[in-house]
Amino acid sequence: MKILVIHGPNLNLLGQRNPEIYGTFTLEQLNQKIKNHFPELEFEFFQSNHEGQIIDRIHLAREASDGIVINAGALTHYSYSLRDAIEATPLPVVEVHLSNIFARESFRKNSVISEVCLGTVSGFGAHSYLLGVEALKEHLKQ
Amino acid sequence: MKILVIHGPNLNLLGQRNPEIYGTFTLEQLNQKIKNHFPELEFEFFQSNHEGQIIDRIHLAREASDGIVINAGALTHYSYSLRDAIEATPLPVVEVHLSNIFARESFRKNSVISEVCLGTVSGFGAHSYLLGVEALKEHLKQ
Amino acid sequence: MKILVIHGPNLNLLGQRNPEIYGTFTLEQLNQKIKNHFPELEFEFFQSNHEGQIIDRIHLAREASDGIVINAGALTHYSYSLRDAIEATPLPVVEVHLSNIFARESFRKNSVISEVCLGTVSGFGAHSYLLGVEALKEHLKQ
Amino acid sequence: MKILVIHGPNLNLLGQRNPEIYGTFTLEQLNQKIKNHFPELEFEFFQSNHEGQIIDRIHLAREASDGIVINAGALTHYSYSLRDAIEATPLPVVEVHLSNIFARESFRKNSVISEVCLGTVSGFGAHSYLLGVEALKEHLKQ
Amino acid sequence: MKILVIHGPNLNLLGQRNPEIYGTFTLEQLNQKIKNHFPELEFEFFQSNHEGQIIDRIHLAREASDGIVINAGALTHYSYSLRDAIEATPLPVVEVHLSNIFARESFRKNSVISEVCLGTVSGFGAHSYLLGVEALKEHLKQ
Amino acid sequence: MKILVIHGPNLNLLGQRNPEIYGTFTLEQLNQKIKNHFPELEFEFFQSNHEGQIIDRIHLAREASDGIVINAGALTHYSYSLRDAIEATPLPVVEVHLSNIFARESFRKNSVISEVCLGTVSGFGAHSYLLGVEALKEHLKQ
Amino acid sequence: MKILVIHGPNLNLLGQRNPEIYGTFTLEQLNQKIKNHFPELEFEFFQSNHEGQIIDRIHLAREASDGIVINAGALTHYSYSLRDAIEATPLPVVEVHLSNIFARESFRKNSVISEVCLGTVSGFGAHSYLLGVEALKEHLKQ
Amino acid sequence: MKILVIHGPNLNLLGQRNPEIYGTFTLEQLNQKIKNHFPELEFEFFQSNHEGQIIDRIHLAREASDGIVINAGALTHYSYSLRDAIEATPLPVVEVHLSNIFARESFRKNSVISEVCLGTVSGFGAHSYLLGVEALKEHLKQ
Amino acid sequence: MKILVIHGPNLNLLGQRNPEIYGTFTLEQLNQKIKNHFPELEFEFFQSNHEGQIIDRIHLAREASDGIVINAGALTHYSYSLRDAIEATPLPVVEVHLSNIFARESFRKNSVISEVCLGTVSGFGAHSYLLGVEALKEHLKQ
Amino acid sequence: MKILVIHGPNLNLLGQRNPEIYGTFTLEQLNQKIKNHFPELEFEFFQSNHEGQIIDRIHLAREASDGIVINAGALTHYSYSLRDAIEATPLPVVEVHLSNIFARESFRKNSVISEVCLGTVSGFGAHSYLLGVEALKEHLKQ
Amino acid sequence: MKILVIHGPNLNLLGQRNPEIYGTFTLEQLNQKIKNHFPELEFEFFQSNHEGQIIDRIHLAREASDGIVINAGALTHYSYSLRDAIEATPLPVVEVHLSNIFARESFRKNSVISEVCLGTVSGFGAHSYLLGVEALKEHLKQ
Amino acid sequence: MKILVIHGPNLNLLGQRNPEIYGTFTLEQLNQKIKNHFPELEFEFFQSNHEGQIIDRIHLAREASDGIVINAGALTHYSYSLRDAIEATPLPVVEVHLSNIFARESFRKNSVISEVCLGTVSGFGAHSYLLGVEALKEHLKQ
Repeated sequence: MKILVIHGPNLNLLGQRNPEIYGTFTLEQLNQKIKNHFPELEFEFFQSNHEGQIIDRIHLAREASDGIVINAGALTHYSYSLRDAIEATPLPVVEVHLSNIFARESFRKNSVISEVCLGTVSGFGAHSYLLGVEALKEHLKQ
Repeated sequence: MKILVIHGPNLNLLGQRNPEIYGTFTLEQLNQKIKNHFPELEFEFFQSNHEGQIIDRIHLAREASDGIVINAGALTHYSYSLRDAIEATPLPVVEVHLSNIFARESFRKNSVISEVCLGTVSGFGAHSYLLGVEALKEHLKQ
Repeated sequence: MKILVIHGPNLNLLGQRNPEIYGTFTLEQLNQKIKNHFPELEFEFFQSNHEGQIIDRIHLAREASDGIVINAGALTHYSYSLRDAIEATPLPVVEVHLSNIFARESFRKNSVISEVCLGTVSGFGAHSYLLGVEALKEHLKQ
Repeated sequence: MKILVIHGPNLNLLGQRNPEIYGTFTLEQLNQKIKNHFPELEFEFFQSNHEGQIIDRIHLAREASDGIVINAGALTHYSYSLRDAIEATPLPVVEVHLSNIFARESFRKNSVISEVCLGTVSGFGAHSYLLGVEALKEHLKQ
Repeated sequence: MKILVIHGPNLNLLGQRNPEIYGTFTLEQLNQKIKNHFPELEFEFFQSNHEGQIIDRIHLAREASDGIVINAGALTHYSYSLRDAIEATPLPVVEVHLSNIFARESFRKNSVISEVCLGTVSGFGAHSYLLGVEALKEHLKQ
Repeated sequence: MKILVIHGPNLNLLGQRNPEIYGTFTLEQLNQKIKNHFPELEFEFFQSNHEGQIIDRIHLAREASDGIVINAGALTHYSYSLRDAIEATPLPVVEVHLSNIFARESFRKNSVISEVCLGTVSGFGAHSYLLGVEALKEHLKQ
Repeated sequence: MKILVIHGPNLNLLGQRNPEIYGTFTLEQLNQKIKNHFPELEFEFFQSNHEGQIIDRIHLAREASDGIVINAGALTHYSYSLRDAIEATPLPVVEVHLSNIFARESFRKNSVISEVCLGTVSGFGAHSYLLGVEALKEHLKQ
Repeated sequence: MKILVIHGPNLNLLGQRNPEIYGTFTLEQLNQKIKNHFPELEFEFFQSNHEGQIIDRIHLAREASDGIVINAGALTHYSYSLRDAIEATPLPVVEVHLSNIFARESFRKNSVISEVCLGTVSGFGAHSYLLGVEALKEHLKQ
Repeated sequence: MKILVIHGPNLNLLGQRNPEIYGTFTLEQLNQKIKNHFPELEFEFFQSNHEGQIIDRIHLAREASDGIVINAGALTHYSYSLRDAIEATPLPVVEVHLSNIFARESFRKNSVISEVCLGTVSGFGAHSYLLGVEALKEHLKQ
Repeated sequence: MKILVIHGPNLNLLGQRNPEIYGTFTLEQLNQKIKNHFPELEFEFFQSNHEGQIIDRIHLAREASDGIVINAGALTHYSYSLRDAIEATPLPVVEVHLSNIFARESFRKNSVISEVCLGTVSGFGAHSYLLGVEALKEHLKQ
Repeated sequence: MKILVIHGPNLNLLGQRNPEIYGTFTLEQLNQKIKNHFPELEFEFFQSNHEGQIIDRIHLAREASDGIVINAGALTHYSYSLRDAIEATPLPVVEVHLSNIFARESFRKNSVISEVCLGTVSGFGAHSYLLGVEALKEHLKQ
Repeated sequence: MKILVIHGPNLNLLGQRNPEIYGTFTLEQLNQKIKNHFPELEFEFFQSNHEGQIIDRIHLAREASDGIVINAGALTHYSYSLRDAIEATPLPVVEVHLSNIFARESFRKNSVISEVCLGTVSGFGAHSYLLGVEALKEHLKQ
């Protein structure tokens, strides 16, 4: 099973940006943590601040991956293009967020991609990713 | 570690109600599945169709439980009393939903309890509960 | 044919509350009137001011009734839990209102249960119940 | 007792248009069914796709009818002129709908004429008319 | 100077409909009053409950009239077709209302034709028409 | 008959401000025009840019005037204090506007004082005042 | 192939009304232009300012036409009755507009008939009709 | 004079929940404080987390109490059933809140029961109850 | 303890304006009643119809008063300048209203000053002031 | 005449994504179809999932193209940057959509670019492009 | 060059009110700072808590000043009368704010005067005034 | 002091696009003007039509710049990703606009980045940049 993990805009700053909200680990450490937690799975990691590159990457995935875990960053709230890319892919996609987006500013309460994702995990810090991968793994097994 | 799992209104009908959305397992089977999955944890399960009983139960929990996983059913969308009960408890609370509430009728997209929960897991069927317990367990360990 | 007639919150006050809107007959008289009007049908009557008890009663009905006529009182306007209970029951449900809810305060114009009921009868006083039972009877005959 | 039954725009297509929503009977058959059901009443039937003709007809009715049953079709949702005509007539008016308008597209959930009608019957197919006439008859008897 | 006075839907009922709002005079008496008040002007009067006939009449007017005074009745609140007809005519048009539409139900507070009329007179009963004609006369003199 | 004519904020600039909207005459000329037009009436004129002074003036009027014509300027759109002053006076009040406020910026379409005025005249330039006085005179005669 | 072309309210004024928006050609010239452009098709043209007549005409068309091109004029923005007529017809219907309705007043941006039409062509003047017929022809060929 | 004091959902937690908002005294202490403050009045106290029980209690009160002081907790914001119970009781009802609900989260700014209460006291901690009883006592004396 | 009592626009009309809402006592009598009720306190009373004067008065108060009771009249609903004045004063401010503003026209349900006041008393006529002073006195004692 | 045809995000997936909505042809085939249909025109085709690249391409076009046909994909609904690019170009731009965007999810009903385009063609599948090019060609000829 | 600097309601409290937002300098010091910074310009300073006085002052300015810098305080958010005064003056007007009004309470995000000002400077404390004067000076030089 | 000046989408067209709104100078000339105006500062200039590149550039800046002046073009109105990038940077950021965005189309009145910027300068053409740099310089000095 090959899982593609996508990190959206500004997530390259993990560890530097609002550590009280996003935690003190870096993106590199987060990726490592995911790999360590699921030694039985194969991972690819992709981070970009470019909506277009993320869409390109999702398109590519249909050839080489079995499922996608995505933290779309703030694109979550307005990128209908990303939504269309997710809707168009035959792969299952799980939406994750480090912080509980429903407990922050009101513009963060609306996700335009939730409707086309399998499910959502939000609010558990780095653990949100682990739970998201877990959910995807379980889904792929069935 | 003692975990209280609360099932809100109409969840006693699991297995009978819209199986294409909620699955074919019964509430009894769901509870059993949770217990089997986490043999190291102690569980109490509580289901009620009464908002007041659920609030009473959350109040009681502060004495005997370490954390709560709640699927509030449709109370999710309007019960500010439940929200206050969650906000008032010193225990961590994780919100779970069987279906992806963000991909259904528009009234289901708003949760009045998310703001006072640790985080949310939505859309993975029975597995949402397992992920929710997992998240809670991880949180309690820290 | 067994019909369950449910009266929601505050309907126990019939005859006492705003008689110019709700009429001067009591709940007991209303129930008797319904029985007299349909001697060929078997009735059960249930009134409660508790949302949870009404949901419980609807769950029970699937075993012993053929259809439900419900005047949900003010729960009509916000109880998504009641809505889910109606949606989950395999029985046909008819919504009735004594007063014309569309001609009163604006918050009374929205019914969250109409979408999951067979149909609605509103505005004819006690006669709304008779028409609702008539509609249900006709539906069950087909 | 003379009852005027008014069918609004597009109801002349009954039996041809969306039979799964509106049924397979024609307008002629519907009118006949109403007459057969109430042999003790005198009926006039009027169908028009013209808002103005329906208003004219309601104005005329004050001389020759005792009450009106109206299915205003889609005029229900925007014709304040029709509303004024109903409000201006001294006759009691009952609003009926074949389908449950509250369970369809959102623009169908608002009726601008309900506020000036005696009451509403919605969702029981052809039976909605019978129940509407029944309600009107009962009202006129008092 | 030839003035066309248009009365919209339900104004043929003047004297019969809500006399406390619209007054006790008939349409015939109103028209006579207008003629008597402005003996120096030539009038044509037109009443219709049909949006289409009113539009047709406005189109005709460009040949034979110098200006229009219109009480569009409830068409005021939704008839964009009427609005287009007024906007398209080269004649000046004055909007009048018997009652003060801004002091009644909220749907009456919005006029879709005001934007394309010269001005509005509202709330003075029959006198609104006299003031409207006066305003139009003054405008035509300049 | 004594009429109080009130001019609200910025109307002292008449003739200087946007002459294409408000005309080229000064406030002095406007007042003179009103007096000339109604030689049989007694007038008092009052202009102020202060909401409080206008309210004070309306309070005073109950002793010495028979009716009020008011162009409240931009206070029209937000001054609920002015509204209360008008509602509290036993005198009839007519609202006038030089320009057609319904055909300009959207914030100008809402008048918070219309609901408590006898009626409204809007859009006829200086002539709006003459029509407003005319309407008031007619009202006082009855 | 027989095509019915329907022109809604005020389109009889083509050439007279706002030529900078709608062009300088008359309705007659427009119809001729359409016929000349598609010599291989048979056309019927219908213009009315009456919503009811347009609905009647659409009902008739099911017997004698293969498809409809409609410019509903301002009915586009509020006539749910017209919408129902289009939805009820088995013929394909193409919506056209002379001007780009999305670039004008905000009330023109909403079309209540688009949802039940095959597609929309807007903004190309008389050419919108030619493109609409072209689209319909292509659709009918398949 | 017998006064019924009703405490809504979660008020049993007084002293434990957000003491910086709700104070450090317990419900028991609050009740005692009220009794001490008004030795001339007779009190009954009732707390429940169940909407239905509160409604039942209000119904009972009409026999045995002279007036009601209610802090409805979060039911304030959505319980139209409670509103109907208050509207239906012949007793005067005063609404009180410990915290200033108008200065907190936006959902707390709307009270669905204010419209049917005599008046509201909000924001003075335990003292809100004393002021509410005082207001009720004064009202009953008249 | 020195208390400043501020009465906003139109309150000088007390006894004359809508006595069924505001009572039959005059402002002078109201002030006297307050003084009599609290012989132990020192009062200053200030009434103005001018927003600016009320703001000036609040600024002055910081030198000479210990607290403020304010009935801001209709300024309550829109005067953000008054709100800023209250927010800027170091004195505690209590908001009072004679009528229950939450049970009247919808524009009266919003108070822009509540967020910066200690608390609110609304709906008890003249008694609202007494309760407000009582609350302020209690607050100052602590 | 040189025409630039721009395909926005996810249109590279044509033939793979929701074929029941977007058709079974590939982007390559679509481009070929356009070229074949207009042998007299010169075409450039550009597809990108990057908003920035599309804007860059529109900037470039002003040197080398005579007009643009654009299907902006989901950027249609939120990219004000794209809107500005279109507004800034001196070239005429025609907006096209494969599906009828007005008959799908509500967020698809709003186009932020329509206001700055010549016109719109929506709903005719691949044929929308042909009609769009046709419209542009006709416009350029004039 | 003569510049009029206007300070709106509550700005006389500078140095006393929320120093963390507005700074610790007094109004006197602010004015001095402005004069020192632009020795080549002539200044008049005006502060008032009265909307009417500010409007009067703007009217006067047209005789004696070359431009205006205004911090309208909370009048910014609702005073359409002030807006009209600014629109009516032939002088250029620059809007300034000490705090970043877009980063505070939501009611502060809307300025009703921005539309009629040359430009806005917001968020730089006392420096906002210096930048505003700078901008005005530059504008006047051209 | 090193200042990074960022120009968003379409600003490379300066001098070509709507010169009546944006001025006749080119981006190159604007940058030169800024450098000339502040010879004591070091500048880097960056323009891109790609949201992602601008975010990348802001991330880079934390190493090499002391502050940022940004004109985000139309990204201002929807790019929450840009907002997050600004919020995440430890550098002070000043928002500038050439035109007065509050006086143009309504979608331009909302800035999603203002909340996380130091302040805003809007409406002074090229001079907005100079004022923005001035403000930033002043801020950095403190």
